[in-house]
Amino acid sequence: MKIGILGQGRWGKTIKKLLEENHFKPLSFHHTDTDWKEKLDCLCVVIPVQHVRETLSHFPHPQCPVISLSKGLEVSTGKRVTEIIKDIWKNAKVGALSGPNFSEEISAGLPAASVVAAEEENLGKFFQNIFHSKRFRVYRSTDLIGVELGGALKNIYAIAGGLCYGLKLGENAHASLLTRSLSEMTRLGIAAGGKAETFFGLSGVGDLLLTASSMKSRNFRLGTRLASGIPLNEATSLESSVIEGLPTTLSVQRSFLFSKQKKPIADEIYRILYENKKIHESVLDLLERQVGEED
Amino acid sequence: MKIGILGQGRWGKTIKKLLEENHFKPLSFHHTDTDWKEKLDCLCVVIPVQHVRETLSHFPHPQCPVISLSKGLEVSTGKRVTEIIKDIWKNAKVGALSGPNFSEEISAGLPAASVVAAEEENLGKFFQNIFHSKRFRVYRSTDLIGVELGGALKNIYAIAGGLCYGLKLGENAHASLLTRSLSEMTRLGIAAGGKAETFFGLSGVGDLLLTASSMKSRNFRLGTRLASGIPLNEATSLESSVIEGLPTTLSVQRSFLFSKQKKPIADEIYRILYENKKIHESVLDLLERQVGEED
Repeated sequence: MKIGILGQGRWGKTIKKLLEENHFKPLSFHHTDTDWKEKLDCLCVVIPVQHVRETLSHFPHPQCPVISLSKGLEVSTGKRVTEIIKDIWKNAKVGALSGPNFSEEISAGLPAASVVAAEEENLGKFFQNIFHSKRFRVYRSTDLIGVELGGALKNIYAIAGGLCYGLKLGENAHASLLTRSLSEMTRLGIAAGGKAETFFGLSGVGDLLLTASSMKSRNFRLGTRLASGIPLNEATSLESSVIEGLPTTLSVQRSFLFSKQKKPIADEIYRILYENKKIHESVLDLLERQVGEED
Repeated sequence: MKIGILGQGRWGKTIKKLLEENHFKPLSFHHTDTDWKEKLDCLCVVIPVQHVRETLSHFPHPQCPVISLSKGLEVSTGKRVTEIIKDIWKNAKVGALSGPNFSEEISAGLPAASVVAAEEENLGKFFQNIFHSKRFRVYRSTDLIGVELGGALKNIYAIAGGLCYGLKLGENAHASLLTRSLSEMTRLGIAAGGKAETFFGLSGVGDLLLTASSMKSRNFRLGTRLASGIPLNEATSLESSVIEGLPTTLSVQRSFLFSKQKKPIADEIYRILYENKKIHESVLDLLERQVGEED
C-alpha cells in the first residue's frame, strides 16, 4: 500500500516512523511539491492548519482516503481540517487522527494511544489498520466532528493551563481549571454537532489534560511565558513552530457556531491574547463567576 | 452556628481553617471523644474511612446535618461514608464534600474548588453556604452516590498513575491511562447508581487528574515506589497517614455492585497489591487488551 505524508514537521516525521514500523514505505511530500508522483492509497495531511487550504490547492485530487493529523481551526472560515480538505478535493473520503500524542515521546519509542475518526465505519477501520500497533494503540470513532474539535479546542485550554501554572495558583486550581475547560469544550463541541462522549475520551479529555499540563506543549509554554510577564509578540517568537492555540482562539471567537455558547475560559484567553487584558484581571473575573450547580 | 469537626488529621485541620475564615468557630473532636458537649448545627466527619463506623458508634446521634469529607469505601461492607453514617445514626441528614483538594495547598491559602452533594437540594444549599468562599469555591450536586464514589474510586487510579509515572512510560501513556481510568470509574459509578455527568465534574475527573498526577498524593507516591521496586509493606510504612487506595481497591474487588463491570485497570491494581503480580506483567496485559471503538 502506498501512503503519502504531506508535511515534514516533527509530527509528520514521527508519523512516518510509526508507519515504517508497521512495514509501510511512506512517501513524504513537502508543501512546495505539486504532484503525487504515483498513485496513492492513503494520504496523511500533517501541516499547520492555516496552511492546509493553500498547500492542498497546489496538488491534484489524490483520489484516495485522506486523513488529517493536524489539530486546529481555520481562522478565515472557522472550518475543521477535514472540511478544508473536502473544500479543495470534492467528495474526498476523509478522517482524522487525534489524541494525547507528544511527538517527541512517540519518536523515542514510548507507548501511546490515539483515536481515528471517520463517519463511515469501514473507512475508520481502514485508517485504524494503517496506524495501529502494539505501542501506538488506535481506537476508532465515527464522531469526526467531536474528534477534530477536541484536538482543536484543547489548544485554547492548554494556554489557560500554562497561565495557571505560571501564576503558581497550585495543583488544586489547575485541576479545577481543566475540569471547567472540559465542560466548556464539551459544550462547544456539542453545539458544533459533536457527541458529548467523544470529549470524555482520548481525543478530548486525554489530549486536554496532556497538553494543558505539560511544558512539552507549545500552547502551555506560551501561557507560562505570558504569566511571567513576557509580552505576547516576544513569547510567540520564542517558538520555531506554529502555536495553534493562537489562531484557534481567534477562530472560536469569530465562529457563529460558538457565539451563543457560554465559554468564559475561552473568552478570557481571547481577551488576554487579542485585547491586551491583564492576566490577573482575567483570573479574578473567572474566580468571581457565580457558583451554583455544576454544569 | 455551631459546627463540629470530627477528626484532627491534616484535612480536618484545613477544614477548620476554612470555616474560621468563613467566620465560624468550629469545635474539634478527637476520635477518642465520646460526647458533643453542646448542641451542634452541623457535623463534619473527617476521619479515615475504615475507622468511621467504630468512631461514630462512641458518640450519641448529633441530631444535625452530617457531612462526610472522607474519601473511600468501607472494606467490610463496600459502603460509602454517608451510608456508614446512616447505619450508626438512623435517619441522619447526610451529605459529602469532595473535589480536587490537596489540603496543604488550601492551608497555604491557594484557591480551590469542590462539590457538596446531598440528595435534597436544600440540604445541599445548607452545606454550600457553610463552606463556600471566594477562594474555596463550592459547587452543588444532588448526586450523592456519584460524588462519593468519584472521591473513593480515584484512589485506585491514583496508584495506577503513580505506577505509570514510576515506570517512566511518558506523558502520552499517562494521559491515556487517566482517560481510560475516567471511563472505568464512570462505568463503576453508574453501576452503583451514580450519574455519568458527575464523573465529568470536579469530584470526578477533577479529583482523578489531580491525585493521579501528583507526588502530593499518598496513593500516587505508593505507585511510584512500587514501580521503583520497593516492596508493598515497605512502601506503605513510608507513609504516616492512611493510603485510602489500598482498602478502596480491596473493597471494589469484593463488592457485588462492581463484580459484573469491566474494570481492567482496577483489576490489575488489585492483582499487584493483593496477589503479588509483577508490575511489568500487569502493564503488558493492559497494553495488549483488544482495541476497537472507544468506550
